[in-house]
Amino acid sequence: MSTTAETIRNGVDTAQLYGTLDAIKADPDLARFRFRARNRWMGGAHNQTTIRDFYAAKQEDTSRAEEFVLDAGEPAILLGTDTGPNPAEYLLHALAACLTTSLVYVAAARGVRLTEVESTLEGDMDVQGALGLSDEPRNGFEGIHATFRVKGDAPPEKLREVVERARQRSAVYDMVANGVPVTLEVETP
Amino acid sequence: MSTTAETIRNGVDTAQLYGTLDAIKADPDLARFRFRARNRWMGGAHNQTTIRDFYAAKQEDTSRAEEFVLDAGEPAILLGTDTGPNPAEYLLHALAACLTTSLVYVAAARGVRLTEVESTLEGDMDVQGALGLSDEPRNGFEGIHATFRVKGDAPPEKLREVVERARQRSAVYDMVANGVPVTLEVETP
Repeated sequence: MSTTAETIRNGVDTAQLYGTLDAIKADPDLARFRFRARNRWMGGAHNQTTIRDFYAAKQEDTSRAEEFVLDAGEPAILLGTDTGPNPAEYLLHALAACLTTSLVYVAAARGVRLTEVESTLEGDMDVQGALGLSDEPRNGFEGIHATFRVKGDAPPEKLREVVERARQRSAVYDMVANGVPVTLEVETP
Repeated sequence: MSTTAETIRNGVDTAQLYGTLDAIKADPDLARFRFRARNRWMGGAHNQTTIRDFYAAKQEDTSRAEEFVLDAGEPAILLGTDTGPNPAEYLLHALAACLTTSLVYVAAARGVRLTEVESTLEGDMDVQGALGLSDEPRNGFEGIHATFRVKGDAPPEKLREVVERARQRSAVYDMVANGVPVTLEVETP
């Protein structure tokens, strides 16, 4: 077996992972990131976000070959034409994706080889809030329930421990569970 | 001008909008929605979500002709291969999309015709948290800054008022700003 094969676990280069951690320990300023999204209204419930550049490790990161384009929309019952998932569904996706990536990285770091990770996330919402009909139900989900199915070369107890550690370190879980200060600036002609 | 042309404002059918509001006022149970996302790990930082079915107005909604597929990933500096935006960027997109749709709907309801809505969202993160190197910086964004550029047939003051009302009613803004209870269930073999 080559050294390279040894360092790749769950598709993550653990040598690079440890190298990144060491570099940040030596210079914590490398850990400062700024992510961005640019959105444009396309008409009705359709709007589109482009994502590409971000700031990381003391400079603008220009490594992405092209921008990502995301379309949002609403289903017919919410007055849209299904031009994309709706914003609340995108939030569920962001949470699922972050928990999964955290899980995969934590497992890689701890020597656990995963064979399968699947999740289903559900969010319950009373749309009277968002539609402005009532102040009693909140606008967003009252709660989100996530179910993860995880398989790998470790006993169930170890797999659960890795999921729990992933939850404790997930960026989006932290934001969704605890909230983030948001400032909103408006420019008009 | 036809009646239909009169009822469409900002691409939103205001007759349908008012009809929906009246129907929910008459039977608030119609407002109970459940959205879902199903995610599968594809290897490394790549995972994929499918979104289609949801519950609304007392039944499973089967109106969507096909499922939406979303790929998440990480850039090279975060050990991925750019298979998609990363989860934190998806959260920015969810927030931008929801504020924009709320704005468009509120404007439609209030008789304001919009001609342009663009936004830029930025989130600052110290990745020492998510990488497990420190407990001091949180895992997620320390803060999110959103800038909206809005044009329409109303004076600046009115446009700002509509943005403020949209913020007050946005589902994703509520969740990101205030947090949501999340339960996490793990199934292992």
